[in-house]
Amino acid sequence: MAQPFLTFLTDFGDTAPATCRGVIWSILPEARINDLTHGTRQFGIRDAAFLLWSSVPYQPVGVHLAVVDPGVGTERRPIAIQAARGDHLVGPDNGLLMPAAERLGGVVAAHVLDNRALWRAEAVSETFHGRDIFAPVAAHLAARTPIAEAGTEIDPADLVPLHFPQPVMADGALSTTVLFIDAFGNCRLAGQPTDLASLIQRERPEAGDRFTIRIGESSLEVPWQPTFGAVPPGELLLYEDADYAGLAIGVNQGSAAARLGLVHDAPIVIEPA
Amino acid sequence: MAQPFLTFLTDFGDTAPATCRGVIWSILPEARINDLTHGTRQFGIRDAAFLLWSSVPYQPVGVHLAVVDPGVGTERRPIAIQAARGDHLVGPDNGLLMPAAERLGGVVAAHVLDNRALWRAEAVSETFHGRDIFAPVAAHLAARTPIAEAGTEIDPADLVPLHFPQPVMADGALSTTVLFIDAFGNCRLAGQPTDLASLIQRERPEAGDRFTIRIGESSLEVPWQPTFGAVPPGELLLYEDADYAGLAIGVNQGSAAARLGLVHDAPIVIEPA
Amino acid sequence: MAQPFLTFLTDFGDTAPATCRGVIWSILPEARINDLTHGTRQFGIRDAAFLLWSSVPYQPVGVHLAVVDPGVGTERRPIAIQAARGDHLVGPDNGLLMPAAERLGGVVAAHVLDNRALWRAEAVSETFHGRDIFAPVAAHLAARTPIAEAGTEIDPADLVPLHFPQPVMADGALSTTVLFIDAFGNCRLAGQPTDLASLIQRERPEAGDRFTIRIGESSLEVPWQPTFGAVPPGELLLYEDADYAGLAIGVNQGSAAARLGLVHDAPIVIEPA
Repeated sequence: MAQPFLTFLTDFGDTAPATCRGVIWSILPEARINDLTHGTRQFGIRDAAFLLWSSVPYQPVGVHLAVVDPGVGTERRPIAIQAARGDHLVGPDNGLLMPAAERLGGVVAAHVLDNRALWRAEAVSETFHGRDIFAPVAAHLAARTPIAEAGTEIDPADLVPLHFPQPVMADGALSTTVLFIDAFGNCRLAGQPTDLASLIQRERPEAGDRFTIRIGESSLEVPWQPTFGAVPPGELLLYEDADYAGLAIGVNQGSAAARLGLVHDAPIVIEPA
Repeated sequence: MAQPFLTFLTDFGDTAPATCRGVIWSILPEARINDLTHGTRQFGIRDAAFLLWSSVPYQPVGVHLAVVDPGVGTERRPIAIQAARGDHLVGPDNGLLMPAAERLGGVVAAHVLDNRALWRAEAVSETFHGRDIFAPVAAHLAARTPIAEAGTEIDPADLVPLHFPQPVMADGALSTTVLFIDAFGNCRLAGQPTDLASLIQRERPEAGDRFTIRIGESSLEVPWQPTFGAVPPGELLLYEDADYAGLAIGVNQGSAAARLGLVHDAPIVIEPA
Repeated sequence: MAQPFLTFLTDFGDTAPATCRGVIWSILPEARINDLTHGTRQFGIRDAAFLLWSSVPYQPVGVHLAVVDPGVGTERRPIAIQAARGDHLVGPDNGLLMPAAERLGGVVAAHVLDNRALWRAEAVSETFHGRDIFAPVAAHLAARTPIAEAGTEIDPADLVPLHFPQPVMADGALSTTVLFIDAFGNCRLAGQPTDLASLIQRERPEAGDRFTIRIGESSLEVPWQPTFGAVPPGELLLYEDADYAGLAIGVNQGSAAARLGLVHDAPIVIEPA
């Protein structure tokens, strides 16, 4: 029998993630826990959903516990989802889990966590459901408790959706936005390399293809390259981001976000140079 | 036999926590280590003591290794404590371990770590007792070495105490201070929700009860609410902090510390509005 | 059979380290992974090499995976090294692994990672070799796959070297530089305590020995002390850094880097006071 495996992502600081791990290990001492990150932008549901979506395909099948939960203690529902790959996702019903669930094959079943027998035995708080509800339920699912025991089944169509912004192709240009800025300052953009290629009637962009990027009033020319080191240090490039599996703009050994003054959701237009 | 379990908290940066874990795993390869945090304020013994106290009740019984140690290499004593719940605590005798030991049922036994047989076999440094003394002793205790072998028994009454600031109830007001500011900017205050309730002749405060908060020359009215989402984003609330199990002031999706200019130990007076 | 053990060091942010751990645990579920740090200066090969060198002697024998790789996707080679102690090191051939390999007894064998059978089975990216090449190869080595299966053997003399700056003793003074600034602001300097001792015709410096430190146009007198607490809070000291096993300058409960305006590679001259 494989060791039970969980991933864990929150916007918690201090000892809160460790407290949740303590709850998990109190229930399931042999659990392997992979902390995806606890440094995501606070209250940033979309950022966290993006990071979870990015990482789950590379994780063993298991339970993915994610808590970015500005609505804790209100009427938003605590949920567990079963995905087609065989994974379970546990967290608040605020969209956080949905892109990852799709990437794991789609939602097979969804349950509200209303079976208090799987919660922490002691009094449940109004402000720390990570510790009192989500972590213990995740531990029980990792211990092979059937998801049906977690609570009332609900229609997957009733789950709160979350959609990443989509690019628009029109008038020979790709209108896109910054989906996510990574820790290096690389800006991951809505869209695929093939979108750029189609602007120049190709299957795939090739090293050295040049594009004009328009951000507000300014525009600049940037090459497509397969990797950072193909341009000199400090130079911009368009490339396929391997972590995100989509289009991105970066700077070799520098920050594209700082260079271009980009923030999340900043609009960008890309056309052939 | 359960897998041996340790928690680990320091103010170390860089690879120092990992070096200590390497020492532990060299002695006890099967140890489970839960890093509570290594991001606590440097040299901040009280902050670290507060975080350790907050988290240990949710951890499995085990060895709690904590090193915030501005006096490393001086005459402050390295100690191991046995607590009534069955846990051991290992670290410097500067008060760091005491609130957690109390919360685990109180000190049953205390020993100075003067048995060099449990230290790292190689030369012991003057500046990195985390690696050379505390981590190896913690590993040996996790491996079921009796605490009596760690060194000379000492009277628990001789341990350096650490007391958190206490609130004062007088003239129909609660005079309190900021104990700890968490990563969200929530300010945890000395005192309990029941202290506020007693100001208005109740058992417990209820949602919507209003209080006046005085900080220096300014005062403002803030409601008691069970959770953040009960007030609009950006609004203040008084609530029961679940991590700390005490009184706190927060902002829904914002930082109360930034909003109110609060720092550790800032005095606050709360009265019925 | 001991549990397979890996250490892991990168300059990655977000979920990238967790994605790599997911790849490792997908191949080798029982692996123990000790994250050395993922907070090293981005693109800072020397810093990362220094940290790796500092920590590996305290780690169990295992596989040391380190990825700080500004040349990802270019012609720099991915490599695995076997060290005399029995460890393997995996990462880019840019010098990062070399000081650690020396500290583990020296390079016994080196191989280019050109056997794609040990890479991730899916398409390999141009920008995330940590996930697609280095992590899976490290997992296979930890699972006892012989290093010869990782790829073509190469002459260790052909590996890209990395040398830390060396101090110069001349005219009764030690001319040194800042090798690394730790998280507390302590500055680790090229050279050994015995270098200082030789300036005053001793075997070892002794507590209270006084030295003059010259930084640019300014100079100040600083005592040698065994540990921080031997000087009052806020005061400077020269000491033997236990993590680095070399000369350092620090401030008791403060930052020497901030106090003295020191940055990496800043030149410093030390002479008897």
